[in-house]
Amino acid sequence: MIVGILGGGQLGRMLALAGIPMGLRFRFLDPDPCAPCAQVAEQIVAEYDDPGALDRLADGATVVTYEFENVPAQVAQRLEAHARVHPPALALATLQDRLLEKQLFTECGIAVPDFVPVATREELGAAVTQLGIGDGLVIKSRRMGYDGKGQAVIRPGSTGILPVPDMAKMAVLLDAAWSDVSSHAENGGLIVERFVAFTRELSLVGIRARDGDTRFYPLVENHHSRGVLRSTIAPAPDLSPGLQDGAENHARAIMRHLNYVGVLAIEFFESADAAGKPVLLGNEMAPRVHNTGHWTIEGAATSQFENHLRAILGWPLGDTTPRRMCAMVNILGRLPRPEHILAIPGAHLHLYGKSERPARKLGHVTMVADAHDQLQGLIERAQRALPPDAA
Amino acid sequence: MIVGILGGGQLGRMLALAGIPMGLRFRFLDPDPCAPCAQVAEQIVAEYDDPGALDRLADGATVVTYEFENVPAQVAQRLEAHARVHPPALALATLQDRLLEKQLFTECGIAVPDFVPVATREELGAAVTQLGIGDGLVIKSRRMGYDGKGQAVIRPGSTGILPVPDMAKMAVLLDAAWSDVSSHAENGGLIVERFVAFTRELSLVGIRARDGDTRFYPLVENHHSRGVLRSTIAPAPDLSPGLQDGAENHARAIMRHLNYVGVLAIEFFESADAAGKPVLLGNEMAPRVHNTGHWTIEGAATSQFENHLRAILGWPLGDTTPRRMCAMVNILGRLPRPEHILAIPGAHLHLYGKSERPARKLGHVTMVADAHDQLQGLIERAQRALPPDAA
Repeated sequence: MIVGILGGGQLGRMLALAGIPMGLRFRFLDPDPCAPCAQVAEQIVAEYDDPGALDRLADGATVVTYEFENVPAQVAQRLEAHARVHPPALALATLQDRLLEKQLFTECGIAVPDFVPVATREELGAAVTQLGIGDGLVIKSRRMGYDGKGQAVIRPGSTGILPVPDMAKMAVLLDAAWSDVSSHAENGGLIVERFVAFTRELSLVGIRARDGDTRFYPLVENHHSRGVLRSTIAPAPDLSPGLQDGAENHARAIMRHLNYVGVLAIEFFESADAAGKPVLLGNEMAPRVHNTGHWTIEGAATSQFENHLRAILGWPLGDTTPRRMCAMVNILGRLPRPEHILAIPGAHLHLYGKSERPARKLGHVTMVADAHDQLQGLIERAQRALPPDAA
Repeated sequence: MIVGILGGGQLGRMLALAGIPMGLRFRFLDPDPCAPCAQVAEQIVAEYDDPGALDRLADGATVVTYEFENVPAQVAQRLEAHARVHPPALALATLQDRLLEKQLFTECGIAVPDFVPVATREELGAAVTQLGIGDGLVIKSRRMGYDGKGQAVIRPGSTGILPVPDMAKMAVLLDAAWSDVSSHAENGGLIVERFVAFTRELSLVGIRARDGDTRFYPLVENHHSRGVLRSTIAPAPDLSPGLQDGAENHARAIMRHLNYVGVLAIEFFESADAAGKPVLLGNEMAPRVHNTGHWTIEGAATSQFENHLRAILGWPLGDTTPRRMCAMVNILGRLPRPEHILAIPGAHLHLYGKSERPARKLGHVTMVADAHDQLQGLIERAQRALPPDAA
């Protein structure tokens, strides 16, 4: 039984490592001849829109899926005509566009930060005036955003002494932001979003089976630096009652709306309402297994990778119950010595077979513990065991 | 970092699946071009004693190990001259000979069933007379025994009315047993062993690091049928106090004696002493990861496969604490439909990429639960979900 996968990065590699024990074979399409998948499975080295390569990917495959959400949605649509593709191309098309994504969040009852779509430099100025700088604004490309690329931030104070901004300084800043972000926007336009004073970022990873059965892992707490995920704590500590159920209900509504099959990840901001009660605001989604779900390999009864495969193959979903408390720390840019990581109690090392490059995700470390209060110490120990710049 | 492995069966495949996430690459030597390792790593297809193939296996490998204990010990000795080999060739040579193995058990304080080594048909008759038929005798080849091959059993009553055996019947039986077993014996001779009235078979999987650090998984309970392991329950239920410590002390003594590095498995008979107190008798050992340790993939903090690799690479050993109760059921001869297995709560499927053949080990199912009393029901459910002959 062959599973075809668009994209051959670490997510695909971990899907293969989860699926090989279940008797599956994998075939990847990725233009990079050094893709991490190549060490564990067959790889077709070609562009994502190469028709012959797509035919070879789908040939004899029981199902085709993706591990990279910036595959052109048209490619998935084309594949759907002659192969089973999960998640649906509609999900890809929706989640590739921050505007459509926010509209979907809103339709499904998920609050989002205030935002205005803009198509020109002039509209950008008008949007900033309309929203006001407040606690700050984030300018994002509608399309192709990934790990903080294609974003600019306008902070209060950066345009002169508050409360009246210096309009000349503002124009310079907006020129720079427009030039920077629109270069990533591929004619898709931008959105300007009001910065949310959030307590923390939480994310939810869930799975929907072909028969509509859904399962969810617990909400996890994520820590970013310079726009890149550094660590995840699972389950999220000190979660207010009702947040997990609320997040699951939102995710279920989205999955139903998209007729979704497979793993879906949703990133939320945890903020507070007027009464100080914690609420979730939708930030963004990924139609695939997700970095904030890597802890499930050691920390849950069934990993997100195994569950994605079970879902897209029409098999029964596995138990998502967390078994232990987990901390996940990303390895960025430089490789650690394995023995330094493995000396940490409860640590497991995951390397992706990639070469060193500044800020590149090369692997992750998962550490399990019996209680949340042990995790912070383990995270710090892992960060010390990683080379400078890797943590 | 390359790990060379002699043998390319399912044990090697599971070693690779455990090691690839730690950034390791694998190279296997196995004469079977359809070996299970071939789907996940590089394979040299050649006989185990092919000098050129052995050179290629060791070339650039950080360490060489084995996943199959019937590799000629001379091969491991030859490799030791120009590569790091763990476990040592001495362990292989000792464990390939039931007589040396029993002598080692005895030296290390492990009781064994009464036995007599025999080299000829005449000595076989004398040994049977010396031991008496009692509850029965097992005749085994000293070498190359595997999954019940190379064994014959003389049962009380099979030679006429007790207590006086019919000597003519006895001679016919011993002729047949001699002919059957000695055909597997490769000039290594046989041993005749008194059948032990045991309560159950328990096994211990442990790991010794290069620096002498040792770790042990809990004793597990094994169920065989027609000489082949069918299921394992981990940890073994209702274990008498002291048995785990006793087994660990025995294993530590053996590991020290052999200057052992890597995973070692020891099978024990649980029997009762004159006062009715449970005692362990040594049955046999395997110098490798072991079928009765497969449950550790889902059931322990670190799997036997990861720990074997950590040990032979000189890395710190991982936590062997069991996380849940587990039942492991072997899949023999015929392949199940994955969805039938995965519908069982807490079940995980492991297939080895092998084609169907009567009684062949094709995979295993691991089921996790919170309490021992759930496991028997899960085992029965798995056996019903397997095709007839597969359970």
